[in-house]
Amino acid sequence: MIAEAVPEMFVRLSILFEEYGRLLDEDRLEDWTELFVEDCHYDIVSRENVRQNLPLSLMLCDSKDMLRDRVSALRQANIFNIHTDCHVIGPVHGTVMAGGWEASAAYALYQSTQEGETRLFSVGRYHAQVVEQGGRLCFARQRVVVDTGAILTLLATPI
Amino acid sequence: MIAEAVPEMFVRLSILFEEYGRLLDEDRLEDWTELFVEDCHYDIVSRENVRQNLPLSLMLCDSKDMLRDRVSALRQANIFNIHTDCHVIGPVHGTVMAGGWEASAAYALYQSTQEGETRLFSVGRYHAQVVEQGGRLCFARQRVVVDTGAILTLLATPI
Amino acid sequence: MIAEAVPEMFVRLSILFEEYGRLLDEDRLEDWTELFVEDCHYDIVSRENVRQNLPLSLMLCDSKDMLRDRVSALRQANIFNIHTDCHVIGPVHGTVMAGGWEASAAYALYQSTQEGETRLFSVGRYHAQVVEQGGRLCFARQRVVVDTGAILTLLATPI
Repeated sequence: MIAEAVPEMFVRLSILFEEYGRLLDEDRLEDWTELFVEDCHYDIVSRENVRQNLPLSLMLCDSKDMLRDRVSALRQANIFNIHTDCHVIGPVHGTVMAGGWEASAAYALYQSTQEGETRLFSVGRYHAQVVEQGGRLCFARQRVVVDTGAILTLLATPI
Repeated sequence: MIAEAVPEMFVRLSILFEEYGRLLDEDRLEDWTELFVEDCHYDIVSRENVRQNLPLSLMLCDSKDMLRDRVSALRQANIFNIHTDCHVIGPVHGTVMAGGWEASAAYALYQSTQEGETRLFSVGRYHAQVVEQGGRLCFARQRVVVDTGAILTLLATPI
Repeated sequence: MIAEAVPEMFVRLSILFEEYGRLLDEDRLEDWTELFVEDCHYDIVSRENVRQNLPLSLMLCDSKDMLRDRVSALRQANIFNIHTDCHVIGPVHGTVMAGGWEASAAYALYQSTQEGETRLFSVGRYHAQVVEQGGRLCFARQRVVVDTGAILTLLATPI
């Protein structure tokens, strides 16, 4: 039923996820939003909520405009703790779906303070729907399922 | 002497290791056993034991039936702490050997409780022998060499 | 302006970074120096210093001979804490530059004691310049930008 993505697709999806993590790590949030299609859906949910089929999201943007607003608000308010992100993303799983690909990957997200103290902020898995637009891959949907729930009251920037 | 695997093989081995980690993370242990050949060998050993050439294994299954039994026992007993695994696996090293490939990769394994607390459970390296069966790659042998020994009294599920 | 590396290059760069991490993890430091060109530049800097454009390096070798000296000194002195490294490296970003490629990747470096206690030692990002010599890829320049500054007084082996 489900076709595994061919090796070339593995590489293209890996490059997309690499860019996703790197743009966040480099605080290039505006560029990061450009990885999404206009009619995108981005949310962060806890694995526990997924398991119980509860609708609550820790972050939810259901269009690219809403993602841009979120980023813009972060730039202006800047009330969250200043930190540096480091995303270490594992190999990407891709399967062909109608009009694109489903892709998932495990991640570990570390945050470091300006004093150079690092802590594990979140681990979990990306579940994405990826489409091709103008020859490059974009996220139509990105759901971040986090295993780590305890510290997510501090969640400000995207994962 | 040792031939490096070609780029295509790098991708195929990466996809195999991705599946290995993902099936464990999704608690699809029965599917995970299907990544092994019937006459497989799976064990977990500490790096310290490997260094001293000591035979003690932290977990050992020397056939696929034994892997299935292990998984079956986990399903029935379920006395271990409920947790969610998250494997973040690094790039895979592959070399050609007689009849297949040797493959290794570093991993970090995080475990999260149902309350959403995450801890680093184990880091180390996979050392696998991989063969092709019916057009897909399988593990003939998987040895997990763990750097982290202190908490392995809690070891229940495969790494 | 900047051309993204083609998929084949993604794989070749991934293999290079895999080897980089694995040789360090296996304490094969002499082999690790062979990944560099003679006229190489290797340094470790904190992200905070990069941000403020401060020149201070946590480690600096501006030729392969200097790298070899450093490794040789580590072998003879051996006064640093004995530990085992585990590098988990994320997907590699590659762009074409004159005469080679720029490549970067996020990493998490764990260190384990002989007693099997593991701690997160450093996270950050590699920023490399890669060239081809005799058909294989080598580092012309490797800058390790570390997010984690607090424990770097213990820095002895390369990251």
